[in-house]
Amino acid sequence: MTGGYLKGRIRREDIITTAVAVYAEAGYHGSSLREIARRVGITHAGLLYYFPTKESLLAAVLERRDAEDTERERLAVPPGREALAHLVALAEHNVRHPGIVDVYARLAAEAVAADHPAHDYFERHYRMAREYATASFRVLAARGELRAGVDPEHAGLNLVALMDGLQVQWLSDGTAVDLVGALRFYLQDLLTVPLD
Amino acid sequence: MTGGYLKGRIRREDIITTAVAVYAEAGYHGSSLREIARRVGITHAGLLYYFPTKESLLAAVLERRDAEDTERERLAVPPGREALAHLVALAEHNVRHPGIVDVYARLAAEAVAADHPAHDYFERHYRMAREYATASFRVLAARGELRAGVDPEHAGLNLVALMDGLQVQWLSDGTAVDLVGALRFYLQDLLTVPLD
Repeated sequence: MTGGYLKGRIRREDIITTAVAVYAEAGYHGSSLREIARRVGITHAGLLYYFPTKESLLAAVLERRDAEDTERERLAVPPGREALAHLVALAEHNVRHPGIVDVYARLAAEAVAADHPAHDYFERHYRMAREYATASFRVLAARGELRAGVDPEHAGLNLVALMDGLQVQWLSDGTAVDLVGALRFYLQDLLTVPLD
Repeated sequence: MTGGYLKGRIRREDIITTAVAVYAEAGYHGSSLREIARRVGITHAGLLYYFPTKESLLAAVLERRDAEDTERERLAVPPGREALAHLVALAEHNVRHPGIVDVYARLAAEAVAADHPAHDYFERHYRMAREYATASFRVLAARGELRAGVDPEHAGLNLVALMDGLQVQWLSDGTAVDLVGALRFYLQDLLTVPLD
């Protein structure tokens, strides 16, 4: 690895980190490459060398998020009770890192518009999350560990929705909202065995 | 009521309606009074006569939302089982009117920032919604209509979060997400009597 290559990689990561901060403050639509360049301390043209369009920088931000999630092995755990306990651990991680939760909640809300460049990403993300959650409840049902009458599909959809909605309320007023406790209550209430 | 006064009222309502549409597309931060004036078909100065600042127009949009909610008598129903059934009816109404859901979901996500002009509105809105939902579950518990082990406070917080989160997923992919069915399932599962 040459020094120039390494320097370029570091600069690229700097730009992505700064973009996350700017999106969190102003949203994706409210941000500009010019402002992000200014914060990084490079010229607008210098930033365009790494990210020629707003969309390409957004794609890099979302890729990093996916990479971080995979690093925490969220999806490496097969669907089931351990996977649900893992989600609680992920929520515990997130409440210690409000920045990433913030930018994600804002982007998800912006990206409901069909022409938003992150629309397909979030549609796919939500579909995968629902399937993973539903599969986990199916595994529990097969083991007799799901309370009678609980529909795995509704419970899976509601779990993903709950995590999103709790984040928005928690970001709005962290002292009044017990995000992790509420999520744990939701999951434990669906099971006939201890969650963890 | 003079003709001039009535004309002014109508113009004011036009501006608010247009603002809702522009917020839904570009978010509050991504919108400008200039663009809203252009869409209404009046001058920038003409709009400033009604709304001298971006914040004053946002306040009017949120006031209208509250007025619409009150009109549907959402908060006129005392906390309890009927109030929860009402929320399902409200969700049924919302899935037929995606525009207002969209702008609300976006604003709520933007407004998590403490310096957003709608921050206090949403903090208050969420607190009131949580208290109303929690009070409803307490009424049910006192009547023996709440399933054993269900904590009214967690169930109330989760209900508000669920409605928000389901809206975002439903807006992202309406064909894959049964918003009303999932909400009904959540509520019915907490009760020992039929929801409605």
